[in-house]
Amino acid sequence: MNLLLLSNSTLAGDEYLAYAKGKIQSFLAARQVTEILFIPYAAVSFSYDEYLAKVQKVFGEFEVQVRGIHCEPDPLAAVAAMQAIVVGGGNTFHLLQQVWQQGLIEPVREKVRAGTPYIGWSAGANMACPTICTTNDMPIVQPQSFEAFDLIPFQINPHYTDVKLQNFAGETRDDRIGEYICANEGKYVVGLREGCMFLLENGKLRLVGTKPAKIFKNGQDAREIAPDEDFGFLL
Amino acid sequence: MNLLLLSNSTLAGDEYLAYAKGKIQSFLAARQVTEILFIPYAAVSFSYDEYLAKVQKVFGEFEVQVRGIHCEPDPLAAVAAMQAIVVGGGNTFHLLQQVWQQGLIEPVREKVRAGTPYIGWSAGANMACPTICTTNDMPIVQPQSFEAFDLIPFQINPHYTDVKLQNFAGETRDDRIGEYICANEGKYVVGLREGCMFLLENGKLRLVGTKPAKIFKNGQDAREIAPDEDFGFLL
Repeated sequence: MNLLLLSNSTLAGDEYLAYAKGKIQSFLAARQVTEILFIPYAAVSFSYDEYLAKVQKVFGEFEVQVRGIHCEPDPLAAVAAMQAIVVGGGNTFHLLQQVWQQGLIEPVREKVRAGTPYIGWSAGANMACPTICTTNDMPIVQPQSFEAFDLIPFQINPHYTDVKLQNFAGETRDDRIGEYICANEGKYVVGLREGCMFLLENGKLRLVGTKPAKIFKNGQDAREIAPDEDFGFLL
Repeated sequence: MNLLLLSNSTLAGDEYLAYAKGKIQSFLAARQVTEILFIPYAAVSFSYDEYLAKVQKVFGEFEVQVRGIHCEPDPLAAVAAMQAIVVGGGNTFHLLQQVWQQGLIEPVREKVRAGTPYIGWSAGANMACPTICTTNDMPIVQPQSFEAFDLIPFQINPHYTDVKLQNFAGETRDDRIGEYICANEGKYVVGLREGCMFLLENGKLRLVGTKPAKIFKNGQDAREIAPDEDFGFLL
């Protein structure tokens, strides 16, 4: 498989996808991709067309055409035909609900497992996991199932942070992930910090970025793993 | 109905339920409640027995007996018989999954609608809403449905805060609630700050606490409403 899974689209104060642009470009160029299919269903408070235009602007800079699946008369045929699939961030529940409703889970899963490149950021990275059970998003709509594309055997927590709000009694991110691993024994969760991404190619998983990822599994102490270390145990 | 819905159990650095203890005591005493049924299913990383013991310790201070529904040979009979129902915080998805699995949604809803006092904090306050769609919790397990006890016609966001993490690009709480109202037109969401609670009695809804609540509805500017103002429009 060929996966590029980003924690987030944009760093605070930066331009859209700016930190990731070079990596996206080289990932697509190495695979001779000139046109991608974009899935914008995580958008809630702005339109799919606006989302498409925003992504077209960025991908246009390196001359990759972007087609929005919401514009395709036959979305399943578009999935089958396209050179790469790109899933943008937003609300993970809304994204998953739409993907299920439109019968896209199986077709995208099979296509990407067969080698078609997949890029996802934030909610789009969560969608590559077995389920969306490690999203940070609010469950604003109910998807048919929490099962997602299941392209990797572990869970990503995008936008991972261990910074705590002062004088706040609600759960921290680590508390929440701690509950997940408690309720889901044997599963790995990776806290993927903003500005970091996973690259899976030639059966090898690499962390790209300058910050370590934090690994959680029930019965083990959470631990930090640096980008140059081996992530093979996750596969 | 007789509802006491708390944003949270405990303020940062404080003892368990300390800020709310007096209010819980007077709410129960005014209704001659001497024994309550506690639903501990939001607990994930500690046991139901531990949770029960913690709550018994607090309620014991004002001589109210606490029975854990998980210890009852016939939970439905316990719901039917009990003087009041109390639902503790933790993970809302885990709580809702268990409540559905054990067939408690309808029995608790009918019992409380018929007048039995209900107290809930955090996840337990979310459970009083039509759905759990405004929880902050991680969807660590999948409940059969997002529908909850539906005792009030609006959504509470517990632990509401508008404090933002520095240098963080992920969604703020207001962004997330903004997505909810966008996807659910006509619904009210109330951001209930820590240390605050709603008291519903004699058909009147009051905010108790020292901080305003923040009201969100699609097409309207979010606005703050102080404890001494009228919340009747939510009913």
